Amino acid sequence: MEHVIEVRARYQECDPMGVVHHTVYPVWFEMGRTELLRSLGGSYREMEAEGVLLAVISLEVRYHAPARYDDLLSLRTTLSGGSRVKLEHAYELSLDGRKLVTGRTVLACLDGDGRPRPLPDALVPAD
Amino acid sequence: MEHVIEVRARYQECDPMGVVHHTVYPVWFEMGRTELLRSLGGSYREMEAEGVLLAVISLEVRYHAPARYDDLLSLRTTLSGGSRVKLEHAYELSLDGRKLVTGRTVLACLDGDGRPRPLPDALVPAD
Amino acid sequence: MEHVIEVRARYQECDPMGVVHHTVYPVWFEMGRTELLRSLGGSYREMEAEGVLLAVISLEVRYHAPARYDDLLSLRTTLSGGSRVKLEHAYELSLDGRKLVTGRTVLACLDGDGRPRPLPDALVPAD
Amino acid sequence: MEHVIEVRARYQECDPMGVVHHTVYPVWFEMGRTELLRSLGGSYREMEAEGVLLAVISLEVRYHAPARYDDLLSLRTTLSGGSRVKLEHAYELSLDGRKLVTGRTVLACLDGDGRPRPLPDALVPAD
Repeated sequence: MEHVIEVRARYQECDPMGVVHHTVYPVWFEMGRTELLRSLGGSYREMEAEGVLLAVISLEVRYHAPARYDDLLSLRTTLSGGSRVKLEHAYELSLDGRKLVTGRTVLACLDGDGRPRPLPDALVPAD
Repeated sequence: MEHVIEVRARYQECDPMGVVHHTVYPVWFEMGRTELLRSLGGSYREMEAEGVLLAVISLEVRYHAPARYDDLLSLRTTLSGGSRVKLEHAYELSLDGRKLVTGRTVLACLDGDGRPRPLPDALVPAD
Repeated sequence: MEHVIEVRARYQECDPMGVVHHTVYPVWFEMGRTELLRSLGGSYREMEAEGVLLAVISLEVRYHAPARYDDLLSLRTTLSGGSRVKLEHAYELSLDGRKLVTGRTVLACLDGDGRPRPLPDALVPAD
Repeated sequence: MEHVIEVRARYQECDPMGVVHHTVYPVWFEMGRTELLRSLGGSYREMEAEGVLLAVISLEVRYHAPARYDDLLSLRTTLSGGSRVKLEHAYELSLDGRKLVTGRTVLACLDGDGRPRPLPDALVPAD
């Protein structure tokens, strides 16, 4: 399962080197996850309202080339693995077909009190 | 009542013009309010835990000169007015005695459900 | 002259009260200005590359009701005034026709060294 | 070489789960690097002014437990490796001696035009 969104780099997201600050890409990854879930008919907002939280427990980012202010970028989010309690996503950000940044996250499922709980059945990756 | 804190401008807070982005100063104002309250023996964190929220309902900022990466700035926060339900603060950010940015906020007191409520007695400005 | 964009509230933009943090709206205002200029055939990115900078010198925001995570909002940006050296914009953010946040900014035109300069002719508001 | 700084979690840095958003820790890591360099007599700001840039090319973060609003945290930054062209740092964020978040970054040295260049001699890790 994968999903592609467009992201426009904001001025506020760029730093004195004139490029998108390296801490911004994981913010976009989170948007990619939200939209991947929406494309499957789900909603993080509704999940949270029902006390099902997804917390990032691991993040990796590789920066190949920088994005710049006003770039209209393409972010591909892929559900790359998981289990009954974790989800793994992979990310590829590109500009005009050129890969700029790649990443990977692992999310754990928590209840409203921050304790681990199984993923809702609808989110458990198929074998 | 007033309180002064030091703020070091972070790289991530600066934009392609090489200066602190204009949306960062209100983040620092919030830090100033937190520390003003702490200097008086209070704690926003404890207030929130007790269901007393302070929401910004008005913000004004005047930008006289920019702060830059790594500047060690001085932020003066003053409780400049208020009533039983609102607090008004004024801010002055300076570098080596030179005024860079000034601001003003009005906060309203809300309960845990987001409804207006009176300020705790300890926070009501004296006449 | 005015222009409307859609903005989706990001998770990272929300705070422990569960609402969009008050410092995020001015980031969206900046996006609104960028897109208003684009709708007129201009580009801030190209302007900056040519050494024409627009710096915010004044900001005002009124918070009527909060936006929440995942809200799909409508932001109307209007060029509300100006002169040969300044531009004034007004903003109105709404959700399903309900006004949440309004704002106003004044921008000054600077050259590449941060000194005031006249606006490019194409940006000077008509009388 | 290592250096420890204190970091106070800001309200704006926390998300609707009531904890510091996972994208904030790498911002703090950058502060740790800045202060490690300062403790050694150096200055990123002066380096940049001289056209020596350090760009993050790799980031890894492991989230063991969340930090919360107003926590006064301890961040240890260690120069953990490097070469003539790269620097590797490790990070450990803790609260009252309890480890919350760990991370690692690799930085490459660039010139003012964004091209790779050797590190200044003073920054090359000793064998």
